Amino acid sequence: MATYVWDFTQGDKDQKDLLGGKGANLAEMTRLGLPVPPGFTITTEACRAFMRTGAVPRELAVEVTTALRKMEDTLGRRFGDPDDPLLVSVRSGAKFSMPGMMETVLDVGLNDTTVHGLARFSGDERFAWDSYRRLVQMFGRTVLDIDGALFSDALDAAKAARGVTSDVDLDADALRELVGTFQEIVRTHTGSPFPQDPREQLDLAIVAVLGSWNTERARLYRRKERIPDDLGTAVNVVPMVFGNLGPTSGTGVAFTRDPATGKTGNYGDYLANAQGEDVVAGIRNTLSLEDLAQRDPGAYADLRRAMRQLETHYRDLCDIEFTIERGKLWMLQTRVGKRTAPAAFRIATQLVDEHLITLDEALARVSGAQLSQLLFPQFAVSDDRTLLARGMAASPGAAVGAAVFDSATAQQRAALGEDVVLVRRETNPDDLGGMIAAVGVLTARGGKTSHAAVVARGMGRTCVVGAEAVDIDLVTRSFRVDGHVVREGDTLAIDGGTGEVFLGQVPVEPSPVSRYLEEGLDAALDHAPDDDTRELVRSVDRLLTHADTVRRLHVHANADTAADAARARRLGAQGVGLCRTEHQFLGERRVLVERVVLASGDDERQAALDALLPLQREDFVGLLREMDGLPTTIRLLDPPLHEFLPDLTDLSVRVALAHERGEDAASDERLLAAVRRMHEANPMLGLRGVRLGLVVPGLFALQIRAVCEAVVERRAAGGDPRAEIMVPLVGSVQELRLVKDEARTIMAAVSAERGVDLDLPVGVMIELPRAALTADRIAQEAAFFSFGTNDLTQTTWGFSRDDVEGAFFAQYTDNGVLTVSPFETIDALGVGRLVQIAVEQGRAARPDLTLGVCGEHGGDPESIRFFHDAGLDYVSCSPFRVPVARLEAGRAAVAETVADVR
Amino acid sequence: MATYVWDFTQGDKDQKDLLGGKGANLAEMTRLGLPVPPGFTITTEACRAFMRTGAVPRELAVEVTTALRKMEDTLGRRFGDPDDPLLVSVRSGAKFSMPGMMETVLDVGLNDTTVHGLARFSGDERFAWDSYRRLVQMFGRTVLDIDGALFSDALDAAKAARGVTSDVDLDADALRELVGTFQEIVRTHTGSPFPQDPREQLDLAIVAVLGSWNTERARLYRRKERIPDDLGTAVNVVPMVFGNLGPTSGTGVAFTRDPATGKTGNYGDYLANAQGEDVVAGIRNTLSLEDLAQRDPGAYADLRRAMRQLETHYRDLCDIEFTIERGKLWMLQTRVGKRTAPAAFRIATQLVDEHLITLDEALARVSGAQLSQLLFPQFAVSDDRTLLARGMAASPGAAVGAAVFDSATAQQRAALGEDVVLVRRETNPDDLGGMIAAVGVLTARGGKTSHAAVVARGMGRTCVVGAEAVDIDLVTRSFRVDGHVVREGDTLAIDGGTGEVFLGQVPVEPSPVSRYLEEGLDAALDHAPDDDTRELVRSVDRLLTHADTVRRLHVHANADTAADAARARRLGAQGVGLCRTEHQFLGERRVLVERVVLASGDDERQAALDALLPLQREDFVGLLREMDGLPTTIRLLDPPLHEFLPDLTDLSVRVALAHERGEDAASDERLLAAVRRMHEANPMLGLRGVRLGLVVPGLFALQIRAVCEAVVERRAAGGDPRAEIMVPLVGSVQELRLVKDEARTIMAAVSAERGVDLDLPVGVMIELPRAALTADRIAQEAAFFSFGTNDLTQTTWGFSRDDVEGAFFAQYTDNGVLTVSPFETIDALGVGRLVQIAVEQGRAARPDLTLGVCGEHGGDPESIRFFHDAGLDYVSCSPFRVPVARLEAGRAAVAETVADVR
Repeated sequence: MATYVWDFTQGDKDQKDLLGGKGANLAEMTRLGLPVPPGFTITTEACRAFMRTGAVPRELAVEVTTALRKMEDTLGRRFGDPDDPLLVSVRSGAKFSMPGMMETVLDVGLNDTTVHGLARFSGDERFAWDSYRRLVQMFGRTVLDIDGALFSDALDAAKAARGVTSDVDLDADALRELVGTFQEIVRTHTGSPFPQDPREQLDLAIVAVLGSWNTERARLYRRKERIPDDLGTAVNVVPMVFGNLGPTSGTGVAFTRDPATGKTGNYGDYLANAQGEDVVAGIRNTLSLEDLAQRDPGAYADLRRAMRQLETHYRDLCDIEFTIERGKLWMLQTRVGKRTAPAAFRIATQLVDEHLITLDEALARVSGAQLSQLLFPQFAVSDDRTLLARGMAASPGAAVGAAVFDSATAQQRAALGEDVVLVRRETNPDDLGGMIAAVGVLTARGGKTSHAAVVARGMGRTCVVGAEAVDIDLVTRSFRVDGHVVREGDTLAIDGGTGEVFLGQVPVEPSPVSRYLEEGLDAALDHAPDDDTRELVRSVDRLLTHADTVRRLHVHANADTAADAARARRLGAQGVGLCRTEHQFLGERRVLVERVVLASGDDERQAALDALLPLQREDFVGLLREMDGLPTTIRLLDPPLHEFLPDLTDLSVRVALAHERGEDAASDERLLAAVRRMHEANPMLGLRGVRLGLVVPGLFALQIRAVCEAVVERRAAGGDPRAEIMVPLVGSVQELRLVKDEARTIMAAVSAERGVDLDLPVGVMIELPRAALTADRIAQEAAFFSFGTNDLTQTTWGFSRDDVEGAFFAQYTDNGVLTVSPFETIDALGVGRLVQIAVEQGRAARPDLTLGVCGEHGGDPESIRFFHDAGLDYVSCSPFRVPVARLEAGRAAVAETVADVR
Repeated sequence: MATYVWDFTQGDKDQKDLLGGKGANLAEMTRLGLPVPPGFTITTEACRAFMRTGAVPRELAVEVTTALRKMEDTLGRRFGDPDDPLLVSVRSGAKFSMPGMMETVLDVGLNDTTVHGLARFSGDERFAWDSYRRLVQMFGRTVLDIDGALFSDALDAAKAARGVTSDVDLDADALRELVGTFQEIVRTHTGSPFPQDPREQLDLAIVAVLGSWNTERARLYRRKERIPDDLGTAVNVVPMVFGNLGPTSGTGVAFTRDPATGKTGNYGDYLANAQGEDVVAGIRNTLSLEDLAQRDPGAYADLRRAMRQLETHYRDLCDIEFTIERGKLWMLQTRVGKRTAPAAFRIATQLVDEHLITLDEALARVSGAQLSQLLFPQFAVSDDRTLLARGMAASPGAAVGAAVFDSATAQQRAALGEDVVLVRRETNPDDLGGMIAAVGVLTARGGKTSHAAVVARGMGRTCVVGAEAVDIDLVTRSFRVDGHVVREGDTLAIDGGTGEVFLGQVPVEPSPVSRYLEEGLDAALDHAPDDDTRELVRSVDRLLTHADTVRRLHVHANADTAADAARARRLGAQGVGLCRTEHQFLGERRVLVERVVLASGDDERQAALDALLPLQREDFVGLLREMDGLPTTIRLLDPPLHEFLPDLTDLSVRVALAHERGEDAASDERLLAAVRRMHEANPMLGLRGVRLGLVVPGLFALQIRAVCEAVVERRAAGGDPRAEIMVPLVGSVQELRLVKDEARTIMAAVSAERGVDLDLPVGVMIELPRAALTADRIAQEAAFFSFGTNDLTQTTWGFSRDDVEGAFFAQYTDNGVLTVSPFETIDALGVGRLVQIAVEQGRAARPDLTLGVCGEHGGDPESIRFFHDAGLDYVSCSPFRVPVARLEAGRAAVAETVADVR
């Protein structure tokens, strides 16, 4: 029989699907003998049932009663006991952490009677009424759906009435009165009194937490984080322990290593005489764990022990929430901690050195996305820059943008293409949209575990928190700091690696990891400013080297020029997977293309093509020189010729105006006639790629000859050129046959002319559904397949990239059709299926077929995993993505043996 | 052991793959005991080996020797015998007839010695030298690749020297001299003398015939007729019999029924004292078989007997070539004869009535393409029209176009979109391009079996032949007839059903079969001018009725308006498979669309949408009234909204000019801003279909509500409306879910408002590869799939219809990438594969899923067969294609039991 309630002595950390992350880890800590309050978890199964039916499962009430009785028996206190009441918190806890996204209700079990028992137990009447005030407020807002402003306005009014400014200055009487006011608000807005039955409170809170899975903001967060909507949340019911019972109480968050830098040691924030939400909300500035060690060495020692035990057990950085109630440590949560990119690399190699994990496991724990972050340029050190303030480095990167002071403005300006930095006193879940839109986030308050820090780190946004000198005035939309006034729209530069905030534009320089990749380990170590940086660079080097050792996928680069190719090779590319030849038709050469297009006969066109030949050949000679000894795949011309001509509308207007003015427009008219003739309603679906090559005589011949002659020239110079010819946009094997025939003729001619023996491989881009569906036939003629996943995505979905990303991508992520752009990460169900079909059919028809991908997905971490699994031989990506692809290819390989690749 | 040579006593008519059509039928006639010269066939296998290697297989020479000796033994004459030489013809014969496309060499075996033997045997020296002259000429041109003009010029010179105008006026001496001249031409152009060794002649002729499979014109013909290039031709080596040995000899072509009208009886053309090629070339006008009966009753009786035997044996119209040599009948070829569309229907039902075939077989023998031809309108009878001439009705239809006098001009003018009628003295294979380009063909000479007639009939081109009064002057590019001069470009109207040629435009009227389909059998019979027409109408009725009985596919129609729907229903449609709703946004309603687009807020947009509601509702009410009781599938708006706005370039020019002139352009500017904002680089891949519905609030809601209200109104009127809602361009199941949610809400609202219970099925168009690839998911939400094969073809191939048909379709058929437009006939390998995947996955996920097709392929005969085989439930096509689809659906069904569906 499926049971919906598990107490913490059941279950373990591997049951996150059922118990959620928090519940599974609470069970694990209980198993380890750590001091966890004896609570229970309502499973995600209950939530899924709730989502299906709109009601909690019938069996739940009975199971909750049983678990509650066991809790009461363990603690020797009873829920609703007027003398010594048991209070509980009701907390959400999904499989994947969604910080601040769902609801929590604390102090459940307080009512007009038990509040007195709590006062007696705590010996603190003010505390008891403050707890009750918090319950009514939180319950009213969260469970009863009453506008939170009503409560905070009443709180402000109470403070004003007593002439105080801070909550803590309200005494017990004032708080008792406030509870009355809050209860009145509840009665007015729900038509019923605040529920006095503790069990009714509990049941309603459980439903509210279950329901909070599907709030607008939770769904938005999930889409951003690509968490499926159908997982559901678990609900944890935990006996309350109090960090706000005086100076020997307190609450905090700790990390077993520094999640920002990866330094070894214990890190954390502690607030004396406070409840947990005060830390997370970042409302008060926190103390460090060293402060705790001085205040309460015993509790601190218990905490250190627990932390070491957890790290050894989890074999990873742990993130812990704890409360000390009158000197007694309670562990309220643990999980494998989120970390910045540098921390991820350093911690992974530290754990290897500590013999806690293998190098394969270490590789599994860093990601290409993190490596990308390490490649972000940093601000250059200079005397010019104006340092405005310092905060805490919460999420790395160097962000420059216009200051904005609210989420809506951030989204509006970002939608217009502007880079913005969101400046807030502190952030809360309502700021999520603005944080997504901004390039960086700056807060005046809060620590490294504040909402802003956690969320920004999660999404890789540059973030500086706790810059206390920043004094924000929301009315004038500006902030003051150190004599400067920064207004909305003024440029700010924030350094998420150092916590520095600068006024105006600040120049940037390469990161140490970039330097390592470009110039090698020694250069990067020499140049590193400190030991932390050196450790980071060494970590990256070890893991990337390991990735190169284990990966099966080769990594090629998309490089159009010799300079690109040289850079790609420095970054570890093992070949060029895509050289686009269209750049060779741009710039000054455009005029030659115009002559090709406007040619009145074969001779004139051939003359223009002939003029292009030496230019193309030189391009290829340079490319092949840089890629000497490595495969270099040159794609024949892909875009439609009219792309090299002026725009139809612009030219039409020009000609119409010239006529109107009586000016001579003969040359423009001739051009306009050609542009009109060549105009296509849908150029993406028009005369391009192999079609162009088959329709315009001599065009592909020119390019093929240029490749052949470049190969001959490189060979003559003692090189080892390995050019391959790639035919774009093939839909039918016959197209390939025709181009191959032409290529063979040209190779034979050049071979004869130069007395060499040319036999360059000819392959195809698979970028049309039909090519994938007829891959068996095409493979009979193709030396290789290179998946052009950009075009394949466009045709499979039937939308062009510009259109999806412009007109309706935002709407489509809002409504859940897309979780991520299919142009960023391969759409495995649709486009990926075609790739699989083509791989299977192609290999069956020609076992030695080389298979690669040269669409932009070749550099996307998740897609690389897909291509590894699909059995490709290589991925090809932009030069700067090559290291990321190397790392991800390694991770894809270890994923076959390491279960927990993140 | 594979043997490359089969003599006629081996093999039978079912071995066309190996022996070619001619060879297989010669073997069959030999088996039947008919008088066939005892020849042999070199198989297509030899041709395929020749194509692979460029040389004939080594074993061939020995096998030919063996077969030749057997032939000599049978006839008691020897090849190369100086006294009584055996001569042979060497003829191509592929599996599918390719009239006039490949080579033939006659009189092989004649040389300077045997010519005298032939003279003795025939008792006609002139005949012997004429035969030798023909051999050298034909062999020189065909085998030795010498320009034919050299020979014909020399022939003309010989006639001029003797002051005669006709070949027959050249006497034996003149011909002997001409042979010398011809041999000199051969020597000059090949460097060697004309080969005197009969066996060398034979071997060279065989190679030439094999090679003629791959001439340019043969490949062009095959592409047009969709005959695979890799079949190869067989070669038939047949002892010569002579129809030109005087008045008791002759040659002819006969049909067992009239191939033009289908009338019972024997039909044919006969030329006394002539060789077969004279008939086919149409150079001399022919006699009828009645004339033969009078001239040579014995031979005629033999022929009648053979014809009856063949028709009974083949159970079909047979087409026969025969020669009478001094009163003795020789059968030289037979095959199931090509026929016009009316003949096909009439003959099929005649054979049923004669108990030779079943109704299923009869259905298999007519085609949708033929039925389409019967629907062609005909010229109206009126006093106004100017009858220029009468010829023979060679291929039906009513063609009107500009007169042109050569193939090149026909192609040029047709490429510019002009309808042209090709007027030629007679046609030859070089005219093929022009015949394809023309709407009709008119020749001054030749009979129903001339090149023009056979080819035009094969491709369904309207054709009139043998209009002898037409006197063509190629120099002035005009013809004279009966006092009129018709110049190039003048309009001609030719009636392929009657053979009439009119000057100028002639109005047309519905064909009898159209009348039958629109008004019923009785009306059509009443209106029919003659018994032939009545028989035709009855035949169509019987076969179409039978098709309706046996077919499994339902036939729906694509109908946007009530009028279309009514017509479709009259023509037998069982539902509307596609009602496009965009026409409801055209015309006067465009202004409302502009208001939707330009709306500055939700209210303004909603007001514009509200104004459209009653208009849409009325459209649907009309449609549902006409389709009462039948499924009516209404597609939500598909095209992008900017299609309803002015063109960007036009509008830009207008605004620029207004500025230049200092005119007020405020309203145009506002429109231009919107057009610019909404402009898409590739509208086909842009914001359209379901995307539009999800992005523009209220748009689909308006349409869904209009459908719902129309259903309510029809129900209130006592009707049985069966509206279904179809969502276009779905790529992901989530898109469908969102529209379904909206539809359910609206149905619930309308149900509540009107006190009814609405639950209309909601389905999708499968028109994107991704929809097909994720059909299992989509089927979970869709009541039906309707394949939109137009868009599916565009995205699968990655080309838009306009572009493929404009810019490169011609080139792509020339180079063999496409044999037929994939927009006409479904591309089974690519697009069809997606259909199969979607059918399989969709049915697996939802066994009761309804499956149909509403792309234009739904009306294409070959595609209908594909859809039947793929297991669809219905096809939907334009109303006028409904009868064709009914017939083809029936043929697809009988194809499962009748082997030989043509």
